[in-house]
Amino acid sequence: MTEKNLVHELLTKLEEHISGHSFGDSPAELYDPITYIMGLGGKRIRPLLSLLAYGMYGKNPTEIFSQAAALEVFHNFTLMHDDIMDQAPLRRGKPTVHEKWNANIAILSGDVMLVRAYDLLLPTPTALLHEVIRVFNKTAAEVCEGQQLDMNFEGYETVAEEDYIHMIRLKTAVLLGLALQLGALLAGASKEDVQRIYDFGVNIGVGFQLQDDLLDVYADQAKFGKQVGGDIISNKKTFLLLKALELAKGKEKEELQHWLGLSQFDKGEKVAAVKGIYEQLGIRSLTEKKMQSYFEKGFQQLEALQIKNQTYYAALLGVTQELMHREK
Amino acid sequence: MTEKNLVHELLTKLEEHISGHSFGDSPAELYDPITYIMGLGGKRIRPLLSLLAYGMYGKNPTEIFSQAAALEVFHNFTLMHDDIMDQAPLRRGKPTVHEKWNANIAILSGDVMLVRAYDLLLPTPTALLHEVIRVFNKTAAEVCEGQQLDMNFEGYETVAEEDYIHMIRLKTAVLLGLALQLGALLAGASKEDVQRIYDFGVNIGVGFQLQDDLLDVYADQAKFGKQVGGDIISNKKTFLLLKALELAKGKEKEELQHWLGLSQFDKGEKVAAVKGIYEQLGIRSLTEKKMQSYFEKGFQQLEALQIKNQTYYAALLGVTQELMHREK
Repeated sequence: MTEKNLVHELLTKLEEHISGHSFGDSPAELYDPITYIMGLGGKRIRPLLSLLAYGMYGKNPTEIFSQAAALEVFHNFTLMHDDIMDQAPLRRGKPTVHEKWNANIAILSGDVMLVRAYDLLLPTPTALLHEVIRVFNKTAAEVCEGQQLDMNFEGYETVAEEDYIHMIRLKTAVLLGLALQLGALLAGASKEDVQRIYDFGVNIGVGFQLQDDLLDVYADQAKFGKQVGGDIISNKKTFLLLKALELAKGKEKEELQHWLGLSQFDKGEKVAAVKGIYEQLGIRSLTEKKMQSYFEKGFQQLEALQIKNQTYYAALLGVTQELMHREK
Repeated sequence: MTEKNLVHELLTKLEEHISGHSFGDSPAELYDPITYIMGLGGKRIRPLLSLLAYGMYGKNPTEIFSQAAALEVFHNFTLMHDDIMDQAPLRRGKPTVHEKWNANIAILSGDVMLVRAYDLLLPTPTALLHEVIRVFNKTAAEVCEGQQLDMNFEGYETVAEEDYIHMIRLKTAVLLGLALQLGALLAGASKEDVQRIYDFGVNIGVGFQLQDDLLDVYADQAKFGKQVGGDIISNKKTFLLLKALELAKGKEKEELQHWLGLSQFDKGEKVAAVKGIYEQLGIRSLTEKKMQSYFEKGFQQLEALQIKNQTYYAALLGVTQELMHREK
């Protein structure tokens, strides 16, 4: 089977597994929002990474659909709660749970999703369960820490580069690391391999977030799902803006602060003006270099892996490369 | 050692264990609220029940402080999130977390508390971990279901007795059952004993909630911590009100509906009037009988237990009796 077919087949079966899972019936107010958010789709990248890592070590991924689904349920729990905190009206183009129902229901449904994630980890062999729950807990707490840091940063004038990287590492990258770690761990990979594949996931995860920051400014509007320049319009503290705040001097600094301070403005004008400042400061290439450095650091981890199934390894590389070259 | 001394000593050591636990440092916004709510006190009844059940089967309770603390952390997580949903300004006489910080922080700190509860379960022997997490998950989901039902009931005209009992069983009683179940399970009690002690906990838990409903109306104000009649003032759907709604006919029904419908009223007058209706309908004695029936059903479960340490058993009975005769 080619790698592409392998990935397609895994995703199809995983989707069947997820949509076939009953989250509960009663009370409907508690369980319907879970079925709803899990049904909104998404790339299922986290469970897919678990399945590929498991297969890479010579195991049959259908054995760990439950644990892989646990990561997707956890991820969607964080989305449900983050959307309340961010007062987001839409998620994947559909009303968020707190909009469609209300905030209380979104809090409580999210809580029960987190509990369900632990349930889905339970089909783990006894000898591995302690370690599986330990690493899951560690990552889950870190994701909460990342979300808190992200909320804290909103109130700051600016944020140092290393603090921003620390935040995105916690908020989004460690969960990709966990996904791969979980697959390797369940497959019985060596301690060293489990660590290396985790580090691979975390590093490419940081790279993906930097790529998100770049795409928001430089994506092709025809291909991009959201409004290009949205982060500039909302003064979102992306790597690009933070780097510009760090490097701008004199007139550029004044102009940047001017645009950040305006409460009323023409969106197109602001995007063009801030992009102009980024251009003068070389922000795009700086960010691309930083992103590349994380991708490279990630791929270095793969060199020493003791892989048993090359097709799965090729599939993992393929999926990663595709994400690295995505245009939306 | 007498039972009273035993309980006192266990509570002292447990409190040291809880206050000595570091929930985390950074970001402070995430972890300070956890230290805060855990420091507000409370009777620590759930972890105490675990310790006593464990001791009853001949084991040394200091071995399971971590798992016992997990239940207290879980309980306080539910309080933190429930307080947001109920828009409660105070918890144990102090500002609630969403008031002292904000709702977003209360959501996220609660989330990380739930994760931490699972961490605290991890020192469980490998052979028991799967079952411990399974029963914990089951109860945790049920507690969420109970809270959702409670919120649903607010919007209903009335609620049938069995639906109310079902709700309080889920919202509060099953966690007392779990506390005892966890202690027995960890101590290696038989499957039958684990089930019996769980059923004991659930049944006395339902009884305690009915007692709460009674105390709110009939407590001695000098001893009661809150305003006596508070549930009447706020039209809270307690067992007493639901029973009165079921039994009142004609003029009594009209009078009850009149008081429930008033948006402005003298609090003392409303409490006196509704108490008068309860009096005419014999609500107090009906509720006391129902409460007693749950207490009795609970105590029946204890008869067949294979107890190894009678001092711990006496202590468990003592703690239960004290709760059954509390005046606040």
